[in-house]
Amino acid sequence: MTTPSPATTMRASVLLRENELTVEERAVPQPGPGEVLVRVAAVGICGSDVHYYRHGRIGDFVLDEPLVLGHELSGRIAAVGENVDAARVGERVAVEPQKPCRRCRECLAGRYNLCPRMEFYATPPIDGAFAEYVVIDSEFAHAVPDSMSDEAAALLEPLSVAITTMRKAHVVPGSRVLIAGAGPIGVICAQTARAFGAAEVIVTDLVAERRERALEFGATQSLDPREVDVATAGFDVDAFIDASGAPRAVFDGIKAVRPAGHAVLVGLGNAEMPLPVEHIQNLEISVTGVFRYTDTWPAGIHLVTTGQVDLDALVTGKFDLDHVAEALDSDQDPTGLKSIVYPTSTKDTP
Amino acid sequence: MTTPSPATTMRASVLLRENELTVEERAVPQPGPGEVLVRVAAVGICGSDVHYYRHGRIGDFVLDEPLVLGHELSGRIAAVGENVDAARVGERVAVEPQKPCRRCRECLAGRYNLCPRMEFYATPPIDGAFAEYVVIDSEFAHAVPDSMSDEAAALLEPLSVAITTMRKAHVVPGSRVLIAGAGPIGVICAQTARAFGAAEVIVTDLVAERRERALEFGATQSLDPREVDVATAGFDVDAFIDASGAPRAVFDGIKAVRPAGHAVLVGLGNAEMPLPVEHIQNLEISVTGVFRYTDTWPAGIHLVTTGQVDLDALVTGKFDLDHVAEALDSDQDPTGLKSIVYPTSTKDTP
Amino acid sequence: MTTPSPATTMRASVLLRENELTVEERAVPQPGPGEVLVRVAAVGICGSDVHYYRHGRIGDFVLDEPLVLGHELSGRIAAVGENVDAARVGERVAVEPQKPCRRCRECLAGRYNLCPRMEFYATPPIDGAFAEYVVIDSEFAHAVPDSMSDEAAALLEPLSVAITTMRKAHVVPGSRVLIAGAGPIGVICAQTARAFGAAEVIVTDLVAERRERALEFGATQSLDPREVDVATAGFDVDAFIDASGAPRAVFDGIKAVRPAGHAVLVGLGNAEMPLPVEHIQNLEISVTGVFRYTDTWPAGIHLVTTGQVDLDALVTGKFDLDHVAEALDSDQDPTGLKSIVYPTSTKDTP
Amino acid sequence: MTTPSPATTMRASVLLRENELTVEERAVPQPGPGEVLVRVAAVGICGSDVHYYRHGRIGDFVLDEPLVLGHELSGRIAAVGENVDAARVGERVAVEPQKPCRRCRECLAGRYNLCPRMEFYATPPIDGAFAEYVVIDSEFAHAVPDSMSDEAAALLEPLSVAITTMRKAHVVPGSRVLIAGAGPIGVICAQTARAFGAAEVIVTDLVAERRERALEFGATQSLDPREVDVATAGFDVDAFIDASGAPRAVFDGIKAVRPAGHAVLVGLGNAEMPLPVEHIQNLEISVTGVFRYTDTWPAGIHLVTTGQVDLDALVTGKFDLDHVAEALDSDQDPTGLKSIVYPTSTKDTP
Repeated sequence: MTTPSPATTMRASVLLRENELTVEERAVPQPGPGEVLVRVAAVGICGSDVHYYRHGRIGDFVLDEPLVLGHELSGRIAAVGENVDAARVGERVAVEPQKPCRRCRECLAGRYNLCPRMEFYATPPIDGAFAEYVVIDSEFAHAVPDSMSDEAAALLEPLSVAITTMRKAHVVPGSRVLIAGAGPIGVICAQTARAFGAAEVIVTDLVAERRERALEFGATQSLDPREVDVATAGFDVDAFIDASGAPRAVFDGIKAVRPAGHAVLVGLGNAEMPLPVEHIQNLEISVTGVFRYTDTWPAGIHLVTTGQVDLDALVTGKFDLDHVAEALDSDQDPTGLKSIVYPTSTKDTP
Repeated sequence: MTTPSPATTMRASVLLRENELTVEERAVPQPGPGEVLVRVAAVGICGSDVHYYRHGRIGDFVLDEPLVLGHELSGRIAAVGENVDAARVGERVAVEPQKPCRRCRECLAGRYNLCPRMEFYATPPIDGAFAEYVVIDSEFAHAVPDSMSDEAAALLEPLSVAITTMRKAHVVPGSRVLIAGAGPIGVICAQTARAFGAAEVIVTDLVAERRERALEFGATQSLDPREVDVATAGFDVDAFIDASGAPRAVFDGIKAVRPAGHAVLVGLGNAEMPLPVEHIQNLEISVTGVFRYTDTWPAGIHLVTTGQVDLDALVTGKFDLDHVAEALDSDQDPTGLKSIVYPTSTKDTP
Repeated sequence: MTTPSPATTMRASVLLRENELTVEERAVPQPGPGEVLVRVAAVGICGSDVHYYRHGRIGDFVLDEPLVLGHELSGRIAAVGENVDAARVGERVAVEPQKPCRRCRECLAGRYNLCPRMEFYATPPIDGAFAEYVVIDSEFAHAVPDSMSDEAAALLEPLSVAITTMRKAHVVPGSRVLIAGAGPIGVICAQTARAFGAAEVIVTDLVAERRERALEFGATQSLDPREVDVATAGFDVDAFIDASGAPRAVFDGIKAVRPAGHAVLVGLGNAEMPLPVEHIQNLEISVTGVFRYTDTWPAGIHLVTTGQVDLDALVTGKFDLDHVAEALDSDQDPTGLKSIVYPTSTKDTP
Repeated sequence: MTTPSPATTMRASVLLRENELTVEERAVPQPGPGEVLVRVAAVGICGSDVHYYRHGRIGDFVLDEPLVLGHELSGRIAAVGENVDAARVGERVAVEPQKPCRRCRECLAGRYNLCPRMEFYATPPIDGAFAEYVVIDSEFAHAVPDSMSDEAAALLEPLSVAITTMRKAHVVPGSRVLIAGAGPIGVICAQTARAFGAAEVIVTDLVAERRERALEFGATQSLDPREVDVATAGFDVDAFIDASGAPRAVFDGIKAVRPAGHAVLVGLGNAEMPLPVEHIQNLEISVTGVFRYTDTWPAGIHLVTTGQVDLDALVTGKFDLDHVAEALDSDQDPTGLKSIVYPTSTKDTP
């Protein structure tokens, strides 16, 4: 490490097992060659954090030992490792929380998000960001302008999911898009679809408040799928984006896609689901999913700094490191969108 | 019509209702502007012909009135309509059996196969090719060299399905491909995959004779999915092609695809099927289907004339117009691949 | 024709030979099957109109007989031909001024702009729109909302060139774009680049007023290429767009492109130009051109109605049918952008 | 290093300055983490080696200090560095001679060939392979089967250039391809085009013997560009590939491309050349170049082991390490194609 770390120990919120969190004193990690040490400012709560907290696993990823959650984060570079420009110390950054191997077939092909040897924050056994410090490869710490808040910088992570989704959904100026689900990813996708030029963004959700909110976040129309039969209403959209994980929404949404259109499944649901295969075949629809992201932070910073996407408006809860459990539980509030944890400062909790 | 038709009436095999065929005398159709009249030489039997024959419908396409089946065909141009070069009379041709509207969004975008106003042979209410004459747009009657047999020229139609499949599956030199099902489409796909450069072509089928046959048609390996668990065997293929329509084969085949790989569903099965959605998401696999074809006959003619694909070897039954029912029933023989009907000549039946 | 035409003769401005225009009384054209008759409201002046007027030719296209110029137009449907919904009469439309053959390889592939049998307005021997009425295929008469002015509706044509350019230049949210030339196409491209999400749009021009104007039309920076060496300034842009036709601008602009970036040549210049081939090779840059457009009017209408592109602001001159020569000469004014001709009404001329 | 190196010093052929080679005794390089040490078996002579030998530079790459040439090579793994499976010792390999940084924008995007920090064999100041040993990153040492000769394994490098060219030229089954130049790259491209499915491969060259030879290497037609006017002969090819570097061949070849076709410039010529810009624009042709390769060795190994490409037939000269100058001079023989240097064994020289 070419620069001194400002501290040797730090506080971290650790998930011991399902539903059991504790704050521990741990050694501050040391940045290796090519890495930077980031003093964490803000961390967004993701549905996957909540899922590990409640269930101790997501699919094949199982919590076998204590884990620090949190992977949507911003902060400030506190020290740099070998081969990193020392002038970066002090830089405000948004962290892209992945550490790919850089050597496998996927990495060499530019699909580092699919690296089978990926070390991803808050995915067992890799610790995440509910801590005062984290390390990350230098080029995955993206400089953000002073005009961007810590919260918005942290939420560039879910925005990156949305940007990847737009790319896979081929959203371009004039596109017509259907989005199922008006949770955090759904509304970020709605805004991002508009920023990519979508002319129509139809959002479906079962909850009236969420349908209302979708309209504030860029939807041109929102509707209750119990009142409109999405599969047969003749939407003929260029792209369907599922941000609900609900089998019925996925099935009906795909049926709303035009010939040669795209369906992108972002929401996490069941490992298997019935899909309208005959419709997919007869209309040659492409169906795929989104798993993390590559090369999205620069575009995200552009969308936020130009005001095309408003990430600050997503924040509905604020918590310090001693209240991570409350932050994780805040998803129970149907009117909540994004809770933020501040590992290195104290904020009022709502 | 700029040239005289050689006859005014013709014989046609007509499906009156499920399981009831008759040979009728009908007027020879007249080629309109831009069309040619083709005297039919050979017609392949497709699974869809058999399905209409047995069930009177395929999905939403229902046999409401008598229909001439058959859409895999070759012949010779007997007359031409207005605006067509009269020199084409006498030309041996393979027929691309579609008549798109040329004006809708799909047609203008080059996806004429998805034209919602398509008139496709042997799809109600459009008559097909079990008849002495048919008409088709001039540019959909593709000249074939004398070295190509009538049967091979007819079977350029299923080869076109296979070529489209390879394009959608992104098969290129060095690809590793898994194909489920060793029926006619499965084995044509196996040969075509090799012609597109596939280094490995693994074919699965429940029937031993069909697995044997796949090896003769280009498969580098064939296996019984009851003996090898396709989903977990670690195939990691670049592309999975389903030519079976079997839900289990589709499910397991998709699980055998590598990150960012492709699954293309060609086989007709149920309108809906359970798919491994979590796997599709985590590996960002693309799933799509094939519905007819665009711009495939020239490539197909090249593959056949260079010997890379052997369509003649597919022929396992030959029938004249009075034995169309027998031709349709010949699919019951598990060792049969393709039966050919000769509307204008008499061939020995096996 | 299913509806009566409102008149039998009309006035048209006819180019007899270089620099010689006259207004003639001609028969109103009759819409054939699938066509509509449009009463022309507004027609933009394009550089190609001026070129035919001054030189009587553009490349291989030569004025052999009198020609009506004008191909950027809007109007109102006055009558419809066979097979067109009569309810379209009275509809305000923007005209996509091409009539492809719909049958050739290019048309069937969705590249109808490249149809070798294209009949394109104001390209010898096809008459254009400096006339009271024109006919066009029904699906190439695009309905526009009442909120859009006649002028803006006419200028959807050059906007279509810009949209095609963005697609070929792969401009997406966050892109960095360099544009050479701040004439009409240059500034429309600047606006459109922003609408496609470009984070930076650098425009070069030799004329100070034009550089100023570029900043009003979306450029984030404009500069004088005599003061900044574009080739070596390290711009490293994702896309270079030439809207100047100037050999030096093209050469230097390509050298400003990043590895694997795109250069799109829109401006008309010499038939041949020296290009930096070694740079193109070493950085694997793609160079291509734009020739007309396919499927752009819907996207253009969206960009204009949402205010992302302001076509009305381009209008700097207005002329009636008796002053087409003045309209064509108005390009001499370096502060002018777009002149509009109103074939069916009288407007003040500036 | 986890395994002992079999020697501490080795012989290397060093280019001291233009036209001056010497054999030096040097330390055997040590494989670092992730690297392997390869005992070199065979090295092909590339035109770039000859160019450095004669002129001491290629464009901006200048020979400032002594350099070992050679970058087309095969050999056997003699030792492995840290983090590499020791079981690889003894493996026969073909070497992909590039060491990208793995961290820059290009590397992360999967375009590691364009890495600005690339260390490429035999490009100043990086030493190449005219030596007994070289080191390379483990995953760039590609295992080859015993059936493949040392020479063919070395020539997978120029084959990789040809494979990249086919990908960029969009060569697929049925394509029609024009290649200018029947030197080593030209004839490898001809073979590779056929392997990618090209139906027609027209090769032009000024030398009769080379035109003859092209026919042996897969060309379906060869011609003298002084006898046939390539630009106007109506070839209408899907792809033009320049392997000549000759300005006239490049200009005329691009004019032979069909609408929306591709031109790929592989041959090295002048830094700038006049190109037919109006033709590129009017036909929307894409022009690009090839700079090294990514992910080509596996496909190349497949093409060679299946006999679709015959690299052994390219070898027309064999030299040991003391005769590298003669090997470099062998390009003077117009009937020669590829000379091979054997750094660790003695072969007869022709």
